[in-house]
Amino acid sequence: MNKLKIGSVGLGRLGIRHAENIAVKLQHAELTALCDINESLLNATADRLNVPRRYTRFEDLIADDDLNAVVIVSPSALHTGQIEAALQAGKHVFSEKPLGVTLDECRQAERAVEAHPDKVFMLGFMRRFDESYRYAHDKVKAGEIGRPVLFRSYSQDPEKFIDGAIAFAPHSGGQFLDMAVHDIDLARWFLDSEPESVYAVGGCYAHPEFAESQDGDNVSCLMKFRNEAMVFLFAGRTAPHGYNVETEIIGTKGILRIASVPQKNLVEILDSGGVRKECSENFLERFSESYVNEMEEFVDCIRTGRKPEVTVYDGTKVSEIAYTCKEAFETGELIKL
Amino acid sequence: MNKLKIGSVGLGRLGIRHAENIAVKLQHAELTALCDINESLLNATADRLNVPRRYTRFEDLIADDDLNAVVIVSPSALHTGQIEAALQAGKHVFSEKPLGVTLDECRQAERAVEAHPDKVFMLGFMRRFDESYRYAHDKVKAGEIGRPVLFRSYSQDPEKFIDGAIAFAPHSGGQFLDMAVHDIDLARWFLDSEPESVYAVGGCYAHPEFAESQDGDNVSCLMKFRNEAMVFLFAGRTAPHGYNVETEIIGTKGILRIASVPQKNLVEILDSGGVRKECSENFLERFSESYVNEMEEFVDCIRTGRKPEVTVYDGTKVSEIAYTCKEAFETGELIKL
Amino acid sequence: MNKLKIGSVGLGRLGIRHAENIAVKLQHAELTALCDINESLLNATADRLNVPRRYTRFEDLIADDDLNAVVIVSPSALHTGQIEAALQAGKHVFSEKPLGVTLDECRQAERAVEAHPDKVFMLGFMRRFDESYRYAHDKVKAGEIGRPVLFRSYSQDPEKFIDGAIAFAPHSGGQFLDMAVHDIDLARWFLDSEPESVYAVGGCYAHPEFAESQDGDNVSCLMKFRNEAMVFLFAGRTAPHGYNVETEIIGTKGILRIASVPQKNLVEILDSGGVRKECSENFLERFSESYVNEMEEFVDCIRTGRKPEVTVYDGTKVSEIAYTCKEAFETGELIKL
Amino acid sequence: MNKLKIGSVGLGRLGIRHAENIAVKLQHAELTALCDINESLLNATADRLNVPRRYTRFEDLIADDDLNAVVIVSPSALHTGQIEAALQAGKHVFSEKPLGVTLDECRQAERAVEAHPDKVFMLGFMRRFDESYRYAHDKVKAGEIGRPVLFRSYSQDPEKFIDGAIAFAPHSGGQFLDMAVHDIDLARWFLDSEPESVYAVGGCYAHPEFAESQDGDNVSCLMKFRNEAMVFLFAGRTAPHGYNVETEIIGTKGILRIASVPQKNLVEILDSGGVRKECSENFLERFSESYVNEMEEFVDCIRTGRKPEVTVYDGTKVSEIAYTCKEAFETGELIKL
Repeated sequence: MNKLKIGSVGLGRLGIRHAENIAVKLQHAELTALCDINESLLNATADRLNVPRRYTRFEDLIADDDLNAVVIVSPSALHTGQIEAALQAGKHVFSEKPLGVTLDECRQAERAVEAHPDKVFMLGFMRRFDESYRYAHDKVKAGEIGRPVLFRSYSQDPEKFIDGAIAFAPHSGGQFLDMAVHDIDLARWFLDSEPESVYAVGGCYAHPEFAESQDGDNVSCLMKFRNEAMVFLFAGRTAPHGYNVETEIIGTKGILRIASVPQKNLVEILDSGGVRKECSENFLERFSESYVNEMEEFVDCIRTGRKPEVTVYDGTKVSEIAYTCKEAFETGELIKL
Repeated sequence: MNKLKIGSVGLGRLGIRHAENIAVKLQHAELTALCDINESLLNATADRLNVPRRYTRFEDLIADDDLNAVVIVSPSALHTGQIEAALQAGKHVFSEKPLGVTLDECRQAERAVEAHPDKVFMLGFMRRFDESYRYAHDKVKAGEIGRPVLFRSYSQDPEKFIDGAIAFAPHSGGQFLDMAVHDIDLARWFLDSEPESVYAVGGCYAHPEFAESQDGDNVSCLMKFRNEAMVFLFAGRTAPHGYNVETEIIGTKGILRIASVPQKNLVEILDSGGVRKECSENFLERFSESYVNEMEEFVDCIRTGRKPEVTVYDGTKVSEIAYTCKEAFETGELIKL
Repeated sequence: MNKLKIGSVGLGRLGIRHAENIAVKLQHAELTALCDINESLLNATADRLNVPRRYTRFEDLIADDDLNAVVIVSPSALHTGQIEAALQAGKHVFSEKPLGVTLDECRQAERAVEAHPDKVFMLGFMRRFDESYRYAHDKVKAGEIGRPVLFRSYSQDPEKFIDGAIAFAPHSGGQFLDMAVHDIDLARWFLDSEPESVYAVGGCYAHPEFAESQDGDNVSCLMKFRNEAMVFLFAGRTAPHGYNVETEIIGTKGILRIASVPQKNLVEILDSGGVRKECSENFLERFSESYVNEMEEFVDCIRTGRKPEVTVYDGTKVSEIAYTCKEAFETGELIKL
Repeated sequence: MNKLKIGSVGLGRLGIRHAENIAVKLQHAELTALCDINESLLNATADRLNVPRRYTRFEDLIADDDLNAVVIVSPSALHTGQIEAALQAGKHVFSEKPLGVTLDECRQAERAVEAHPDKVFMLGFMRRFDESYRYAHDKVKAGEIGRPVLFRSYSQDPEKFIDGAIAFAPHSGGQFLDMAVHDIDLARWFLDSEPESVYAVGGCYAHPEFAESQDGDNVSCLMKFRNEAMVFLFAGRTAPHGYNVETEIIGTKGILRIASVPQKNLVEILDSGGVRKECSENFLERFSESYVNEMEEFVDCIRTGRKPEVTVYDGTKVSEIAYTCKEAFETGELIKL
C-alpha cells in the first residue's frame, strides 16, 4: 500500500513537532504539504523536512487533490471552520484541541463529522497515547484498583514560560479550556462517567495580568461524577520545577500515580541540592512519544478503516465541562449539571 | 526542679501510648496516676508502667492533690466536661482532639480555659510536632516557597482497620470531624488564614455501612481561604497500602511535599513486586515521635510558664470548619462563611 | 537521496528487534534482505515486515549487490568471519558484540576493518545510545561531577529467564564476556581510561549448573584504572525484580546514578505491596529506544561519511578486559595489566 | 530498681551526644559524672546537663565508687587502657570503636573482658541499632531474600568537613579503620561469615594531603567471604550531598537497600533544582536514634544480666579485617586470609 499523503496547517511549536513526526517518524505516511501564513517559516520548515508543496492559504491546501489527510494545528479560533472545510474537501482530519472555541462551534464540528461518515476524524488528546497513562488505564479497566474513588490530575506549566502565557491569556479561553481540558479528558477516559457538579476556585497568586482575562495563574476545581467518583483538577502556570503533568487514581483496592515526579530521564543527581531528579521542560519533551503514537493511530485508523476511540462528541463534552469549570470559577458558585 | 506529676485518663490505644511516653520518655515528668473505667486494663497498664495511683473515676483523679497536670485521652463526648473539671481542680490540661463534640461544647471549653489564665491548656494536634511537618512549616514561614497557592492534604486509614471504623462510625462525628480535623489544623497553621467557602463530596465506595451515619468511607472538600489559597482535603478509610498522611503545599516559588510516600523506614525492597517501600501501619507508628514531642512541649510550657502555640480558640475554629465540611457534604451545597 | 538498503542476519530475539527497527523506525534506510538458517522463521518474519529478499546462507546475503550494509546479529562464534566477509563484499557493517570469541578473532576483525577504510564499521554498544546514559555522559564530560572517583555498574538478568541462561552457559563465554562487556564499555566511555588491575569474585549462589562452564550465576570485579578511578562491576542472573542495569559515577563534585530504579514506566502503584514501581522485563524493553538510536547512528554515519565513535579497537579492548576479568575470576588471583 | 549511675569520658562531638542521651533520654540510667581534660568544656557541659561530679583525670572517674558503669568516648589511642582500667575498677564498660589501635591492644582488651566475666562490655556499633538496619537484618535472617550474594556498603562523609578530616588524618588509622569498620561490622552481622580474601584500591582524588598518611580521600575494597558472599565496601570523605551511609544486600530471592537516599526527613522539595530531597548532615543526625537505642541496650544488659550481642571478639575481628584492608590498600596486593 502506498504511503498516506498528509498536509499539515499551522507551524507553531506543536505544529512543527507534528510536521517533524509525520515527515520522519511515521512508516506509513509522508508529509506532502505544509501550510502557514508565515511564508519564510513555511519555506524553511518545508526545506528542512523535504516537503514538496507549500501553501499560505488553507483553501489551497485542501484543494490539493493528492492529499489524503489534513492535520490542523492552527490557532484555536480557526479549528472548527478548517475541520468543516477539510472534511468537505474529502480529507481525513486530525485536529488539535479544542474542537471549537464555543459550544456552538463544537456542535457545528459534530455536524460536519456526521456529514462525512466515511472520513476519519480524530482529536489530539495525546495523553491517552502516553505509555504510562495507557498502562494505568489498562489496570483500571481490568479492575486492579477496584472502584475509583478519587481522580486527581495536575497540569502545571513552568514559570519560565510566563511571559508567553500572559501574552496569550486573552486568547486562551482561560486555564480550564487551555490546560485542564486534557485532565478533563483523562477523567472521563478513566472513569467512564460525566460530572454532575462543579466547584472551582483560584486566583492570580503571582501574576495579576491574568485577572484582566477573568483568569487566574493557578486554578482548581472539585467535581462529583455520576458514578460518585470525586475529581480534583489543578492547573497552574507558575511551576518552579518544570512541566508537571501528574495524575492519581485512588481506588478501593489500589492506587495509581502517574508521573508524580516529572522526571526528565533516569538520571539521579547527588550534589549540594541533595538527591534530585531534573524535570521535563515542556509538553513537547514530556509527551514526545505520545505525539508520535497518536499520529500513528490516526494513520492506522485511515489505513484499516477503523474509527478512533475519541469521537467528536468527546471533544464537545470536554469543552462543555471546561466551560462549566470556567463559569464556576468566574461566578464563585457551585454548578450542578 | 522536681518532676511534673501527671495523671492520665483513658486507656484506648492512644491513651496507652501517651501513658507510656509520659512514663518512659519524658525527662521532666512522671506518670503518677492513671484513670480508666476498665479496672483490669487499668491495673495491668499501671503495673507495667510502675504507676502508683489508679482511679476508675475521673473525679477521683482530679481530686488527687499531688497531680500537677492531667492528660485527657477519654472518649470525645467526655472531653469538654473533663477539661472544665480538671482546670477547676487546679490542673494544667492536655486534651486530645476534639475540644468538644458540639460547637457549644467548644465554647464552653473556651470559657473554662479563660477562667484559668494561669493554667496551661494544650490540644493534641500532634502533626505540628512531626519533624518533617515542622521542617516544611519553617520553610513556608521563611518565604522559601513564595506565596501559597494550593494546600493539599490526605488522611487515609488502611482498609484493614475497616471493621473498627464501621463499628465506631455512629460516634465518630463523620470523617471530617474524626480525621480531617488534623488536615484542617495543618491548613490553618501553614496558611495563617481561614476558609471562606467550602464544597464537599464523597460517598460509600466500598462500605455502605457509613451511609447510616450520614458519612462516607471516602470524602473530600475544596475550600478557598481568605488569603486566596486553595485547600483540597481528602480523607479515606480504605487505603490499600497502609496509613497515609501526606501534604503538599504549592507555592509561587517552590513546592513542598511531606510524606508523599508513607514509608515505614529507610528500607527499599526489590522483589517480584518490583522496587517498593513498605508503609506505615497506623498513626501510632507514623507519629511515634510527634506524640513524645508534643508531650514534651506541654511539660515545657508548664515548667517555663509559656503558653502553647495552639490555643483553645484553634480547637473551636478547627471544629467549626470540620462541621461546615460535614454540613457541605451532607447537603451537597456550597457553603460560604 | 535514496534509502540505504540493509540486509540483516540472525533472527534471535535481538535480531528480530533490529529487523523491525530497520523496517519500521528508520527514515533513511530500508530492510531489503533477511538471512537465517531457520527458513520458516525467516519467511514469517520477512512476510510480516515486507522484506523482499530472503537468504538461508550468509554468503548469498553478502553477494546481493543491491545491499549497502549488513547487520550481524548471528551467534557470537560467527561474528568475526561474517564481519570479514561482509566488508570484503563491499558492505558497511554493523555487528552485535562481541567482535570475536577470542582475542585472535578480535584482531582478525581489526585487520578486516583496517583493510576497508572506506567502509563504516560499528559495534552494538547500545547503552551509549540510551538517553539517560548520554545525558549523564554529557555531564561527566562537562566536568559537572569533578574528577571520577568510583564507577559502579550492574547488569542483572531476571531469575525468570534462568533456564535459557543455563542452557546457553557453555556457549556464553561466561558472565564477564556475555553481560559485563556492556559495563566495561561504559566504564571506558565514562572514564576515558584503561584498567591496570583486576580482581574478580563470584559463585553459584542459586544454580550450580554454571560451575560446569567455570562460570557463576553472580560475579563481580574491582578494577583500578590508570586515571586512578575505582571500577566495581557486578553481573548476575538471578535478579528477583526484573532486568536491572544501573550505573553510578561518584565524582569529587557530584554523583550521578542512572536507572537506580529500573522502572518500567512512570506509574507508581500503592497496594498491599506498599508503594512500588514495576520493573523492566528485559533488555529489549529497557533499551528499546537505544536500539533504534544506534541503528540511526549507523545509517547516518554511512550517509554522511562519518565514522562511529566506537571503533573496532574498542571492541578488542573490551573483550580483552572481559577476558582478564574471566581469568581473574577463574584463578582467584589479582591480575595486573 | 534504682537508676544506673554512669560516668562518661570524652567530650568530643560524639561524647557530648552520648552524655546528653544518658542525661536526658534514658529512663533507667543517670549521668552521674563526666570526665574530660578540657576543664571549661567539662564544666559547661556538666552544668548544662546537671551532672554533679566532674573529673579531669580518668583514674579519678573510675575511682568514684558510686558509678556502676563507664562510657568511653575518648581518643582512640586511650580506649584499650581505659577499658582495662574501668573493668579493673569494677565498672561495666561501653566503649566507642575501635577496641584498640593495634591488634595487640585489641587482644589486651579481650583479656581484660575475659578477666571480668560478671561485667557487661559493649562496643559502639550503633548502626546495628538503627531501625532500618534492624528491619533489614530481620528480613535477611528470616530468609526473605534467600542466600546473600552481594553485600555492598558505603560510608561517605560530606566534603564540607574535609578540613577536620585532613587535620585528623595522621591519627585516624586511615579510612578502613576510621570509617569502613562500621561497614565491616555490618557485613559480618548480615552475613554471619568472615572474609577470606581482600583487594583494596583508592586514592587522593581531591585532597593529596591524605597521601602523607598512606591514606586516600576515597577508598574501596572487594572481599570474598567464606560463605562465598561478595562484599564491596566504599568509604569516602568528599560526598557532595551530605552524610551518606547506605547498604545493599543482594540475595537470590530478594534485594534490600537501606537508605539509598540519605534523606534528612520526609520533605520533598520541588524547585529550580528539580524534585529533590535534602540529605543528612552528619552521623549525629543520621544515627540520632541509634545512639539512644544502643545506650538503652547497654543499660538493659546491665539491669537484666544479659550480654550484648556484640562481643569483644567482634571488636578484634573487625579491627583485624580493617587492618587487612589497609594493608591491601597500601601494598596494592591481594591478601588471602
